[in-house]
Amino acid sequence: MTQVADFEQMWRDLAPVGRSASSGGYFRQPWHSAELELRAWFREAATARGLELEEDPFGNLVAWWGPDSLGSGTDKVLTGSHLDSVLDGGAYDGPLGVVSSFAAVDLMRSRGVQPARRLGVAAFVEEEGSRFGRACLGSRLAVGTTTWDVARELTDREGVRLGDVIEGGTSTLLDGVATYVELHVEQGRGLIDLDAPVGVHSAIWPHGRYRYDIAGRADHAGTTRMEDRADPMLTYAMTALAANKQARLSGQRATFGRIDVRPNGTNAVPSHVTAWLDARAESDAALAALVAAVEKQALDRGGRDGTTVTVTPESVSGEVAFDTALRDELVARLGGVPVLPTQAGHDAGILQDAGIPTAMLFVRNPSGVSHSPYESAETADCLAGVEALADALTGLVAP
Amino acid sequence: MTQVADFEQMWRDLAPVGRSASSGGYFRQPWHSAELELRAWFREAATARGLELEEDPFGNLVAWWGPDSLGSGTDKVLTGSHLDSVLDGGAYDGPLGVVSSFAAVDLMRSRGVQPARRLGVAAFVEEEGSRFGRACLGSRLAVGTTTWDVARELTDREGVRLGDVIEGGTSTLLDGVATYVELHVEQGRGLIDLDAPVGVHSAIWPHGRYRYDIAGRADHAGTTRMEDRADPMLTYAMTALAANKQARLSGQRATFGRIDVRPNGTNAVPSHVTAWLDARAESDAALAALVAAVEKQALDRGGRDGTTVTVTPESVSGEVAFDTALRDELVARLGGVPVLPTQAGHDAGILQDAGIPTAMLFVRNPSGVSHSPYESAETADCLAGVEALADALTGLVAP
Repeated sequence: MTQVADFEQMWRDLAPVGRSASSGGYFRQPWHSAELELRAWFREAATARGLELEEDPFGNLVAWWGPDSLGSGTDKVLTGSHLDSVLDGGAYDGPLGVVSSFAAVDLMRSRGVQPARRLGVAAFVEEEGSRFGRACLGSRLAVGTTTWDVARELTDREGVRLGDVIEGGTSTLLDGVATYVELHVEQGRGLIDLDAPVGVHSAIWPHGRYRYDIAGRADHAGTTRMEDRADPMLTYAMTALAANKQARLSGQRATFGRIDVRPNGTNAVPSHVTAWLDARAESDAALAALVAAVEKQALDRGGRDGTTVTVTPESVSGEVAFDTALRDELVARLGGVPVLPTQAGHDAGILQDAGIPTAMLFVRNPSGVSHSPYESAETADCLAGVEALADALTGLVAP
Repeated sequence: MTQVADFEQMWRDLAPVGRSASSGGYFRQPWHSAELELRAWFREAATARGLELEEDPFGNLVAWWGPDSLGSGTDKVLTGSHLDSVLDGGAYDGPLGVVSSFAAVDLMRSRGVQPARRLGVAAFVEEEGSRFGRACLGSRLAVGTTTWDVARELTDREGVRLGDVIEGGTSTLLDGVATYVELHVEQGRGLIDLDAPVGVHSAIWPHGRYRYDIAGRADHAGTTRMEDRADPMLTYAMTALAANKQARLSGQRATFGRIDVRPNGTNAVPSHVTAWLDARAESDAALAALVAAVEKQALDRGGRDGTTVTVTPESVSGEVAFDTALRDELVARLGGVPVLPTQAGHDAGILQDAGIPTAMLFVRNPSGVSHSPYESAETADCLAGVEALADALTGLVAP
């Protein structure tokens, strides 16, 4: 099977790019060398297939299949995913969708499919928000829910402005796109429990990122009596434990995975702790309740520690229900695969929210873990994913 | 008074070096530009006074007063302190002792003192351990309690080896030094409470730094159920709170002021947290009990979180009692100033431990805070410190 060989070759090409020799994880932050290499690979994959490359001023890429005369329509079908990773992430989150999209095009061609609508393979930029702190930044800019005037002022951890990294402008990449289908590796244990290789997502849980700025007073770690301190690390520690407890009690998700301490010296009580809460819940009301409960405990503890707590929501997304008609069509075409929600944000959610009917396929992950070097997928399941995607897209673009 | 003008001029010369415009604090890490500028200033101050400069292979500096014929003796008197700072530290911690030492020499000369023993002004390198993680590194290398073979392998936060920064070798700087007197800004509220400008330290509390390596498993912050996680941030948070509580209950000091999280991404459960416990206690037994209690709680919590906790002592110092005879002599000479212990480590403790009779003077700090931009000292108190130091040194070097 030449499709299998091509799929595996694409996978081998990507495997070393941005991989840490020590952890085995991936560091593919946007506009750094590894991610630029991935985009060069994307352009080559498009050119090698005779697809027409389109790029917007934010670095989002689409490789179009179909004659030019089809390009001006308002019924284009888009598939794809993203190439960037979280810091020390896995190989599949993002790239599996892009590689599977190219492989699905290959499979459709080998089957002699003649698309009546234009079909594009997309790679959206900065989906993870690992560099500029905004998840799905590329797709948000492409649909216009984040404006360039706001985005250009975002800074990375080194203080570099996005406006100094890219030119920016206006994107016409999604003009005429009537349907989006994204394939993704599963990020939990749903398909393991159901013993199925492929599923369809029903919705994305509401979720948000909230920056906690906790200001105290720097002091000598030895000479300052415990009762004379205003130590923001204590307020932070209690808040991190409170977030975990609230999420467990309510059956939701809350995580403090990122922290920035000043001055971060062993023998100094910190002057300032900045930390980020990642919260997700099954409904908007449950998310609001969870976030409010954590904030209340942080403020209470801050009052006792003599510290000042300021909470700033950085990106909050309500529930996204994927298009019901499209979902039902895919499930029927794929012979009744499982339908489950996801707790992870995706570009698919941004496009659905912007009014483009969208669906998501997902492929079993035997480790059950995600955003981790241990994330994995079996080749047989990946190929089942390609087949499902090709079947779904064939139904969408067929005359 | 020309001595006052000279003292104030030295202070003005040092004020801008390594100062952060945003915080007002100082960043004077060893062998970075600000600290190299301070050492150039030291050499100029020595040369301008006709003092003889001696430098060892680790960057420790001494400016000697007295004819060469006195230099070969075994009864040299040394004074001084250090020029480096913690990250975002204050202006006085270290430099006040060096500036006051030069000012004391000036004052002794203006009074016509003719020293019968050689008198040196010292600046020891990396006293704070802010770059290579070992407090009092310069004085430890000078007395030989830390060997160059060990020290050369120390790395800073950027992974730079000390052995690649300096040549290293053997120090003869302290050969023949029979007495050391260090002046330092106070790091607590003792002299405020006693309404005194200057005091003498009796001893340094036992203290240590302990590295906590907490290993968990990276996971997606949204899709991983709370009960499926092994989150090292939770183990850390509980440990930081436990350290604070144990120290409060026992009347000792414990601080977690430095943390390093991997991958430190908002939407990833961390794989690893490294954090440093700074612990100090009034006796060796109290320190051991404090450290053991914190470690026990960390291990217990780690067991519940599914994380692995490894504790590595990085530098532990037992109690240092300063030379009693020298202390009594100074107190008598200075007219009965207060005598108090300190919870901070100092080069003076390293020299005392190495068998050199040592004393410490300290100057009131009206903020009561230390290792902070808010650390302060009144000029009148600083001048009282210079006067006390000059009186003490005159008694030690007089024929």
